[in-house]
Amino acid sequence: MSNNYQIIGFVAGVFTTFSLVPQLYRVYKLKSAREISLAFTLCMAFGTLLWLTYGILSGSLPLILWNVISFCLAGALIVAKSRFGK
Amino acid sequence: MSNNYQIIGFVAGVFTTFSLVPQLYRVYKLKSAREISLAFTLCMAFGTLLWLTYGILSGSLPLILWNVISFCLAGALIVAKSRFGK
Repeated sequence: MSNNYQIIGFVAGVFTTFSLVPQLYRVYKLKSAREISLAFTLCMAFGTLLWLTYGILSGSLPLILWNVISFCLAGALIVAKSRFGK
Repeated sequence: MSNNYQIIGFVAGVFTTFSLVPQLYRVYKLKSAREISLAFTLCMAFGTLLWLTYGILSGSLPLILWNVISFCLAGALIVAKSRFGK
């Protein structure tokens, strides 16, 4: 569980997880989420919840850490979509 | 590598990977990607490439499979953004 390649999983998570931050920022800045697909936000939230389960069962620290954060960010995007989507 | 919980990783990947499909569809339907953050698309593409590396090194079949597809879809979203983004 503390293999050297774990670092790659941590760096990978920085990118895929925090990719949602500039997307959230853009939606809030434009105050518009018309182009954001609701299905995208719902699938992302449900999917990260399942990845979290997989991470716990397989003992993968990067998967656990990043999917907790991703789930929260996907949730925030659902809120933004319901607020600013048409 | 063939643990029972691998199925959860496969189902998780169906959701997080294919979440990008309705998003791509929406952008092409509206012919507009103004609200899509370029940073989001670039971080997603680079991140999935790193997850793929992590998946290969840790022998995780779900991570390998889904991140190959995710990388292609993220690439398609970069193309869509460059085409329809303002």
